Amino acid sequence: MKILRVNMTTLTTTWEELPGKWRMLGNRALNAKILLKEVDPACEPLGRYNKLVFSCGPLAATNISSSGRLSVGAKSPLTGGIKESNAGGTGGRYLARQGIRAVIVEGKPREEGPYVLYIGDGGAKIHPAVDLEGLGNYRTAQVLRERYGHDASVICIGQAGEMGMAAAGVFNTDMEGQPGRAAGRGGLGAVMGSKGLKAVVIAKDGSYRQPVADPAAFQALRKELHGMILSSPATGKRYPQYGTAGLIPSISVRGAMPTNNFRSGSFAAAEAISGEALYQLITGRGGEGRTTHACMPGCLIRCSNIVPDREGKAFLSPLEYETLAMVGSNLGIGDLETIVAINRRCNDYGLDTIEIGVAVGIAMERGLLAFGDGEGVLKLLDEIAAGTVLGRVLGQGAVITGRVLGAARIPAVKGQGIPAHEPRALKGMSVTYAMSPMGADHTAGVTTGARVEHTNPDGQMELSRTLQVQAAALDALGLCMFVSRVEGDVFPVIEKILTAVSGDTGFDCLSLGKDVIKTERLFNLGAGFTPAHDRVPEFMREEPLPPTNAVSDIPREDYERFWDEEFWGPLDEIWD
Amino acid sequence: MKILRVNMTTLTTTWEELPGKWRMLGNRALNAKILLKEVDPACEPLGRYNKLVFSCGPLAATNISSSGRLSVGAKSPLTGGIKESNAGGTGGRYLARQGIRAVIVEGKPREEGPYVLYIGDGGAKIHPAVDLEGLGNYRTAQVLRERYGHDASVICIGQAGEMGMAAAGVFNTDMEGQPGRAAGRGGLGAVMGSKGLKAVVIAKDGSYRQPVADPAAFQALRKELHGMILSSPATGKRYPQYGTAGLIPSISVRGAMPTNNFRSGSFAAAEAISGEALYQLITGRGGEGRTTHACMPGCLIRCSNIVPDREGKAFLSPLEYETLAMVGSNLGIGDLETIVAINRRCNDYGLDTIEIGVAVGIAMERGLLAFGDGEGVLKLLDEIAAGTVLGRVLGQGAVITGRVLGAARIPAVKGQGIPAHEPRALKGMSVTYAMSPMGADHTAGVTTGARVEHTNPDGQMELSRTLQVQAAALDALGLCMFVSRVEGDVFPVIEKILTAVSGDTGFDCLSLGKDVIKTERLFNLGAGFTPAHDRVPEFMREEPLPPTNAVSDIPREDYERFWDEEFWGPLDEIWD
Repeated sequence: MKILRVNMTTLTTTWEELPGKWRMLGNRALNAKILLKEVDPACEPLGRYNKLVFSCGPLAATNISSSGRLSVGAKSPLTGGIKESNAGGTGGRYLARQGIRAVIVEGKPREEGPYVLYIGDGGAKIHPAVDLEGLGNYRTAQVLRERYGHDASVICIGQAGEMGMAAAGVFNTDMEGQPGRAAGRGGLGAVMGSKGLKAVVIAKDGSYRQPVADPAAFQALRKELHGMILSSPATGKRYPQYGTAGLIPSISVRGAMPTNNFRSGSFAAAEAISGEALYQLITGRGGEGRTTHACMPGCLIRCSNIVPDREGKAFLSPLEYETLAMVGSNLGIGDLETIVAINRRCNDYGLDTIEIGVAVGIAMERGLLAFGDGEGVLKLLDEIAAGTVLGRVLGQGAVITGRVLGAARIPAVKGQGIPAHEPRALKGMSVTYAMSPMGADHTAGVTTGARVEHTNPDGQMELSRTLQVQAAALDALGLCMFVSRVEGDVFPVIEKILTAVSGDTGFDCLSLGKDVIKTERLFNLGAGFTPAHDRVPEFMREEPLPPTNAVSDIPREDYERFWDEEFWGPLDEIWD
Repeated sequence: MKILRVNMTTLTTTWEELPGKWRMLGNRALNAKILLKEVDPACEPLGRYNKLVFSCGPLAATNISSSGRLSVGAKSPLTGGIKESNAGGTGGRYLARQGIRAVIVEGKPREEGPYVLYIGDGGAKIHPAVDLEGLGNYRTAQVLRERYGHDASVICIGQAGEMGMAAAGVFNTDMEGQPGRAAGRGGLGAVMGSKGLKAVVIAKDGSYRQPVADPAAFQALRKELHGMILSSPATGKRYPQYGTAGLIPSISVRGAMPTNNFRSGSFAAAEAISGEALYQLITGRGGEGRTTHACMPGCLIRCSNIVPDREGKAFLSPLEYETLAMVGSNLGIGDLETIVAINRRCNDYGLDTIEIGVAVGIAMERGLLAFGDGEGVLKLLDEIAAGTVLGRVLGQGAVITGRVLGAARIPAVKGQGIPAHEPRALKGMSVTYAMSPMGADHTAGVTTGARVEHTNPDGQMELSRTLQVQAAALDALGLCMFVSRVEGDVFPVIEKILTAVSGDTGFDCLSLGKDVIKTERLFNLGAGFTPAHDRVPEFMREEPLPPTNAVSDIPREDYERFWDEEFWGPLDEIWD
């Protein structure tokens, strides 16, 4: 296994062996180790000292389901701290098949870009790609697949990333070649843009196969894991039918679905944009005979729904709960067709639907357009792609939009817009948003599904902390977070799989998750984060959220206990 | 001596005795003590938990020259840290004459403002002032002087402060009733706006006179100090003739005058906007028989130049070096008339000319308008006052302007635009900007006048640190920083004056200055500042500044030694 180092100043690539100590680390863990080792945490995120890391996991070149997530990491221009964002799609698997665990992009081109990094044919090359400048993701992916092969994976940015917008994500093609799989959060698309890198193209035909120390054990464990996935209600039935859209109406009923710029947690039109409604829309149009597909090769959960256009042809995939809420209910939009159009356009321009949903919600409250005005939202997105001043404001995300427009209520933590699990009605999410090194990021530890009283502050810190560690462990292995949605405890199975693959014993997912978070914390300390940044916005601590009328009232002491060494072990000791 | 507490939530005022331990503290020191004691440093700057403090010094009700500075303090929406900004004008003296050392404004009105706080007739009242909403400072001051008395002091904000812009200052009338004395930096005008407070009006006729323990000694010391001021070349001759505009061409010749968005330190048209050129313009128009006046009652330095309009009537006062550079050379504008118009309009809208100069410089480099386009700048200012999206971006200052417009070069430290003493050619200023709790603020410690080799990094840390302590001491006593520009050491004289006034001994200005800075540092630690924030921008560390081609290369170790306890004493120990 290799690390590919790409120097955008000299436009050269070099190969390094993956250090043996990192043999079974991937994704979020590897990103954190590399960034802590190589990047000055106080550097400017879009300057030449930041580095952008693409990575996959130690199981990405196996046939274990859901193991091929692609991670993107860097110091974030949105949060100012370390950021990992991961996506399904083909990038993770194809990278692994090229025998590459991580790509480190550094420097900054002396001449105007953009460039494309091509990985294939046993090598890597940087090609000028001036013709791609200013193109959206869909056209970019199409051109590059024509140029490099229709089955290649394309990891790319749209106009937003090229313009250095902090709401810009990194997009990645699915098996149909559509760039709808977003490593959306944290503005990593802007970092990619700052490196002059429009796309990374990875050939499909890499020859690397993961060596397995104990093939018989591996096959048995694979079967066990896959059986758990297929037999569990969430991963075997609900996700494959509805995708994450199935979370509506359950979150809305709980009063935790951001509505009209976080003024309410319950959306009157929730039914109209629910998983069931989406399912009816898809099946009503034929949907090419299926409602969802696997976003990654070999994934059995197949939660990625496919929304066809009026002619029944695949138009958008996936349409996630977060998007339905953040550019739906949060903007007062209760029409699926409009949400689909907004999502498609965000994908094309390379924008994170969550950050944009929060930013536009603020703009609506400040009177720039009315809640529910879907056409107005589409026009705002066009302003972003065109780089108008208003577009550039929104493209910088929730905090800058709020400050520019003079908003007293800015739903963000550590510079990042709060996603669709409302931290007042779901108090565990207050802890996740406030304490995660990732800023307000639901994937860092979702408490929403836990069987607890979500409006009771007691015990939420411990709940969130445990789930943050579990999420970090899965993220460190390139596994989809939904693997943990099976019935029963999946972690012992994963640990045994790691042993079967490597021949080593002693894998402990919880220790791994803790180590990842401690590593990220060390980076963030260097970047200038302190407990002063570990807070939900003032308005969420005071303004009751209808219909539960809950406020975010986790006691300050609980936040302070979060980093207890009793739980984490010595905070400065991390795996080298 | 009293503290007046103004609650904008309940619209009530209460009086408190000034605690005895603070008897000889004022301005920046008192602000810091109050804010550290009463405000959660992690609060949102424009939220209801921030407090705004107006204060004056322990000599403000005496006839000591230059002792009546008005300080404004709060957690800054620009830097996110503690901020003190002070101004001449009548506010400080009149406040003292009302027997008030500090006014603490807290809370936030439940109903739309704005309001006016009137202090006079032995009391204080909050009056609704809806008719003032959206008015500029000149009209506001005029209306309020008509309403409350032509000799009253008016402390007010323009449109920028009302709209919560982080480049908004607090303005204060001079003895002619013109609101040209700006506590400009740090966005304190936005904090005042967030409190719904359009203006504070202070009647002139307060009856308080500072009791003096040893009148004979006091008179002798006063005479000594005044003699030093009048006999020194800077304070007795250059400032009274040219104002701070006299710093041109000396700073330009040294290559330290920001030009064309900090691309150069030398401005081809420097002569045309120099103190000499300004003097010619003023005298050529008659200038009402004088070129400068005292900005505060009784000030002997009289550095505040008065620029007449074409009819010879006073139009703008003062026109400072910082303004000549930041909206002059930094914008490529070499025409005094244009700079005067820009300055006047900034004053009217309530904008800090430094922050606006940095922001507009970035906008010019990003292509929004050409360097030298003075008419374009005036139009941009009108956009700010009108609250257009572009105007609101610029009104938020340099960092947000830079981020929105995608600038790689943002001349700012701790969120605040860098003023007109270029930290590459004047390396001591690198230390001041990077290390002061005030962020990039030249008044926190100007090394420019020191007789050192300014492009040599050696010893600059020690020089800046000493000057920061001295500046803090003067700021803590409400004394103008120019008092320290006299020949000889002024501090022993000041210490003896404090003894003569109070009857106490043991005054030590250096200890006072250190205590102020340590107090502010403690606030900033709570606000989330770490050494990661103590840096000049990356581009200034790498991009040579013509004509010296210097870079900001103070060794990191020097910054790290800044807080040595050997110099400061125990960092957590401050005067209670």
